[in-house]
Amino acid sequence: MSASRRHVLALSGGVGGAKLAAGLGRVLAPDDLTIVVNTADDFEHLGLTICPDIDSVTYALAGLNDTERGWGVKDETWQAMAMLRALGEADWFNLGDRDLGMHIARSWRLRAGESLSEVTARLTRQLGIAPAIVPMSDVPVRTQVGTADGWLDFQRYFVAEQCRPVATGIRFAGVPGAPPSPGFAAALARDDLAAVIVCPSNPYLSVDPILAVDGVRAALVARKVPLVAVSPLVGGAALKGPLAKLLGELGQEVGNRAIADHYGALLDHLVIDTADAADAQGLRGSGLCVTVTGTVMHDAQDRERLARAALSAAGIETG
Amino acid sequence: MSASRRHVLALSGGVGGAKLAAGLGRVLAPDDLTIVVNTADDFEHLGLTICPDIDSVTYALAGLNDTERGWGVKDETWQAMAMLRALGEADWFNLGDRDLGMHIARSWRLRAGESLSEVTARLTRQLGIAPAIVPMSDVPVRTQVGTADGWLDFQRYFVAEQCRPVATGIRFAGVPGAPPSPGFAAALARDDLAAVIVCPSNPYLSVDPILAVDGVRAALVARKVPLVAVSPLVGGAALKGPLAKLLGELGQEVGNRAIADHYGALLDHLVIDTADAADAQGLRGSGLCVTVTGTVMHDAQDRERLARAALSAAGIETG
Repeated sequence: MSASRRHVLALSGGVGGAKLAAGLGRVLAPDDLTIVVNTADDFEHLGLTICPDIDSVTYALAGLNDTERGWGVKDETWQAMAMLRALGEADWFNLGDRDLGMHIARSWRLRAGESLSEVTARLTRQLGIAPAIVPMSDVPVRTQVGTADGWLDFQRYFVAEQCRPVATGIRFAGVPGAPPSPGFAAALARDDLAAVIVCPSNPYLSVDPILAVDGVRAALVARKVPLVAVSPLVGGAALKGPLAKLLGELGQEVGNRAIADHYGALLDHLVIDTADAADAQGLRGSGLCVTVTGTVMHDAQDRERLARAALSAAGIETG
Repeated sequence: MSASRRHVLALSGGVGGAKLAAGLGRVLAPDDLTIVVNTADDFEHLGLTICPDIDSVTYALAGLNDTERGWGVKDETWQAMAMLRALGEADWFNLGDRDLGMHIARSWRLRAGESLSEVTARLTRQLGIAPAIVPMSDVPVRTQVGTADGWLDFQRYFVAEQCRPVATGIRFAGVPGAPPSPGFAAALARDDLAAVIVCPSNPYLSVDPILAVDGVRAALVARKVPLVAVSPLVGGAALKGPLAKLLGELGQEVGNRAIADHYGALLDHLVIDTADAADAQGLRGSGLCVTVTGTVMHDAQDRERLARAALSAAGIETG
């Protein structure tokens, strides 16, 4: 790889992806990293524009993420939510007080005419985050889940309904028609792009929307640099929690083989967990490069180590 | 007074007025009281519609008001504000977490198309408040203060600038053109209206906007029932704090005589504090009825006692 190629484009969903994004932020120079975040889980709620994945990535990069609860801001309180509940307002989506500060800031600036890219750049800079965190698109894209009662917005299905309805389909409303954000388009077009890292986020729900943004799949097909995905699976069995139910109902197989097949020709290299080491031989047999390493990220050291492993898989050696 | 006349219309600004409104709410049956609240201090901030006087009255009636700080909600926390500050957002208006729950609920429902009257009825009912709290108008009216730099919205002048600019004038933008809210108009037109009580709020800044609503002054001039004002003054000298500076610059005299003159022919009866008992003779000499009593409201007992005194001044005897 040319020494002049050094920029890394990371694609991330929420919590798991955010951890690796934070690790990449620690081991790469700020100018060498663009983190593109899924916005298809975003939603409008109580007059606020909530961007769960952008927030997860932002809090992780700012060191504000709650590592025990696994989502949201650490040292969170819930006073506004208690008042909203007393006022008879919807309480199915739990909004912490510190988190609300973020939603309020974002929402009023969007209403004032700033793009989501501009707002995200402003707010992440204010929190001292150096690498660029950019939404996949400034145009709203919304994941929806088909049910017997019609299409449900993802958060309503996932949080309010707790995935109870039987899923009949999944779609990303708004694409085609959503161009990549300026930062995403610029990163894809960089002369010095060295690698694309797909963070350990759900391929179907978090990464697919990014790939569905206008022109993105074609740009990735045409790329000349490695694409490395870090599998979100640990212990092969399944994605944790109710999303396994959703994917099962949609006939999506779960496993590293299925993930590799899903990404298909886009994928050069898959990083899988040591618990799934048995998957490696078969994957390699089909021509894929595979790295087997610990992918569970308990702390900053884990995040940095996995970031280095993913970069190394892309031919980028760090410090 | 006819036994069939029993409805009381109270006009209120913020903190002081809210205390008496809460007292009236304790001594009158819910159906016998309409509390009309000044909305000219309302403002848009960070995408939220904030109604300081409606909130003060609501919190006082719900027993949620912070009596030590003198404004806002008791047991308040400030986590969202800390996040907003970290995000570089305006922090000149301090927004508590519980208070934010109120602003968020109100703002999204206004955006969804409910009127301020509808939102206020909904939210106060949810908090278990039985008497009607109604905005003076559903159309925005905004108090503005003239300065060398032009007209400043009231909260900006009062909170952000802490009344530092020299005031050259005061105006209520939006009137004429703002009709009374349905609840205000209905109360003014009731056959069983027994009295109008002007709560101890600033006559120039809190009560005048209510009187400036389309047709209200004429309706009050034409009324057939007593109008009793409770003076906001205690110890004669002055209104507390920076508002004294504002009124001085505008050439407004401060004192019970000035207040009586200001309300003029509208006023039948003025309730003044025992500390200002010396004012009584002169006021009575000009034909006004005067009640001298303690008007400082430290607790629920004070509020109820003053409410009974004001009602008694209007010829309404309670329990």
